[in-house]
Amino acid sequence: MRLSARELLILFCVGAAGGLIGDAGHVQAGTTTYLDDETPFVWESALWFPILVGLATASLGELRLRLGPSRPGFDSQAGIGAIAAVLALYAVTALVYDEPEGPATTLVVMLAVLIAAWLGGGRPALVCGLAAAVVGPAAEILIVELDLAEYASSADSLFGVALWLPALYFAFGYVAAQLAELLAARRPT
Amino acid sequence: MRLSARELLILFCVGAAGGLIGDAGHVQAGTTTYLDDETPFVWESALWFPILVGLATASLGELRLRLGPSRPGFDSQAGIGAIAAVLALYAVTALVYDEPEGPATTLVVMLAVLIAAWLGGGRPALVCGLAAAVVGPAAEILIVELDLAEYASSADSLFGVALWLPALYFAFGYVAAQLAELLAARRPT
Amino acid sequence: MRLSARELLILFCVGAAGGLIGDAGHVQAGTTTYLDDETPFVWESALWFPILVGLATASLGELRLRLGPSRPGFDSQAGIGAIAAVLALYAVTALVYDEPEGPATTLVVMLAVLIAAWLGGGRPALVCGLAAAVVGPAAEILIVELDLAEYASSADSLFGVALWLPALYFAFGYVAAQLAELLAARRPT
Repeated sequence: MRLSARELLILFCVGAAGGLIGDAGHVQAGTTTYLDDETPFVWESALWFPILVGLATASLGELRLRLGPSRPGFDSQAGIGAIAAVLALYAVTALVYDEPEGPATTLVVMLAVLIAAWLGGGRPALVCGLAAAVVGPAAEILIVELDLAEYASSADSLFGVALWLPALYFAFGYVAAQLAELLAARRPT
Repeated sequence: MRLSARELLILFCVGAAGGLIGDAGHVQAGTTTYLDDETPFVWESALWFPILVGLATASLGELRLRLGPSRPGFDSQAGIGAIAAVLALYAVTALVYDEPEGPATTLVVMLAVLIAAWLGGGRPALVCGLAAAVVGPAAEILIVELDLAEYASSADSLFGVALWLPALYFAFGYVAAQLAELLAARRPT
Repeated sequence: MRLSARELLILFCVGAAGGLIGDAGHVQAGTTTYLDDETPFVWESALWFPILVGLATASLGELRLRLGPSRPGFDSQAGIGAIAAVLALYAVTALVYDEPEGPATTLVVMLAVLIAAWLGGGRPALVCGLAAAVVGPAAEILIVELDLAEYASSADSLFGVALWLPALYFAFGYVAAQLAELLAARRPT
């Protein structure tokens, strides 16, 4: 592994916490509804959701460092900004889910592209963004197929999940990649 | 001309594509409605709309390079970010058109100023932004006067067009100026 | 005083003008309602509101320069961007006040963190942000207690004011701090 156990744990915890905050917004707004009543819940989320997001964050971070050398010179402020950006986008999706799908999707896609262009990171970050944009929605489609959760009828046109969901995961992949770079840049040399 | 035919064509195509995406959001949300039923339509737009936006983009790019030397060192990522920013703002206008006019207008104006401050570009970019902010709404007021299209009654207080429309065009002018600089910076020297 | 009378006056005027613009959005959207009918009004605001915001802006600026040396190299464009960012956030609060409190609060908090991470400024700016985040809402809670104004019932869960109000003031503190740095950087040496 390119990330140490401690670094993987940090990414897992950041991802799980972010997933909890973002998912609470989706549940409170009515964007998504859990149908699973057998799993224990944490705040508004079934326990497995923040665990999956935490695992995805750590996996994307590991993937990032395997794809190439990380950029130097990151500070924690850049990491905080990146986390805030994707959580703001997560909240935007909660607030626009019942707006007309066209402009809502355009807004989320363009904000995701803006976050990616802002964070940069070249081809490795792009691969992480695209991997997240494919795997994340695929996992959520499976969750919907298994009747564990559902999206509101105004936001379920992508095989049961929202059309803007790949864009949200795309931004998430960029942020996870940047956090891995930040962790690598903080290592004593 | 300061831009080559190929560069003008690139700007035309980028502008026309962006106009189509943004306009689809306006039509789908109900911000604007086409009354013209004689022109062929492309997606949600009357054919003349993306053509006008494409011509405006190429004209602003040419204007930019006539106003002064362009900044060096642009990469395509900066161009993608700029395009994403103005399309995000376009989508915001589609989503807030039926909100109270005061805060909706403040939001769009301040986001446009933020985009302009972010892109920078000095006096030449400012001239492009102001030119777009005047000519664009004037053209749309004419379109409304000719009964070719109309704005929703919640967003028609500026001679039939939305009060936030100059701000959207202002940001558009900055982005067109930056794209022209980007094209100039990519020329082989 | 670390700021001259002229610099304090500039900060007062910028703050008062920003307060007027932002507050007009709150009143027009219905986020807040003035119950005070004895004070003269300016635009949508009771006269004391912009005065308080102007005094807070000047005080935060003075606090900033007492906390440490200011960064060099600011230009007016950075100041304009900072002002636009906090006024955009102010307008966002006016537009989301009747949305579900969870995602609305997450959005405002994350955008405030993003503005702070973008502006930077280290510990002195953080202190200004935190001071504003405590004193501002406390003053507004007092205003509500005195029956001079009230927040809509969908946005009054923090002792009568909105849960996102500290985040809005946090961003305001960062912007006031940056404007003070900008004024200091413009002094002839």
